[in-house]
Amino acid sequence: MPPSPLAFQTYQPINFASKLSLFSDQWQPRVIAEMNDYQFKIVRIEGDFIWHSHADTDESFIVLEGELRIDFRDGHVCVNAGEMYVVPKGIEHKPYAHEEVRMLLIEPRGVVNTGDEGGERTATNDLWI
Amino acid sequence: MPPSPLAFQTYQPINFASKLSLFSDQWQPRVIAEMNDYQFKIVRIEGDFIWHSHADTDESFIVLEGELRIDFRDGHVCVNAGEMYVVPKGIEHKPYAHEEVRMLLIEPRGVVNTGDEGGERTATNDLWI
Repeated sequence: MPPSPLAFQTYQPINFASKLSLFSDQWQPRVIAEMNDYQFKIVRIEGDFIWHSHADTDESFIVLEGELRIDFRDGHVCVNAGEMYVVPKGIEHKPYAHEEVRMLLIEPRGVVNTGDEGGERTATNDLWI
Repeated sequence: MPPSPLAFQTYQPINFASKLSLFSDQWQPRVIAEMNDYQFKIVRIEGDFIWHSHADTDESFIVLEGELRIDFRDGHVCVNAGEMYVVPKGIEHKPYAHEEVRMLLIEPRGVVNTGDEGGERTATNDLWI
């Protein structure tokens, strides 16, 4: 008999809702994918974060559900589902969600959620789901 | 009179549907945002792309509307709205859409859509909208 052909693989996409259903705690980003040295993280947030900045990198927010407000020292931006915003490096910002927001963060591997501020909101880094 | 306070800015989010409504041609990615040296691009595709790879970088696909199929030499992945997939560097792939797909590409600035293959599907690079 001839050898069997190589198995034809069905690769799996990454489904945001499925990944979000695996946890319910807030302010704890989970890594779902990597692209080169960047990570895609999903996170649930509600209420006020702390003022912080990232000296060395921009940070991207894509809202999946809810309305995110990002406060800046001189203004704010509201980001709804189907929208994104990139906070430039070095700019102080404070995310806020009146009701729970589910969103995707994209940033270099190793970025700490609270920047250089530390404190109780500082999440475990590089936590995969 | 005291000086006026500094104007309080309302910054604008980037809305994927609004950006997509600004063009209708397919296979021509438009840049909508940058994060460090990476770009976010929206694109409409329908039908078959060409086999190609990117030797130096991974490439991320987030589907906004429709169903994207990415063929590999040993299999495929189907990516629907609300899902993403990262094609690793060096892996040959061929995107395909039975009906129009609207999606977000995330990759380093300067990546050419057809890799090293060239041909009529090669799009203008760094086209902002």
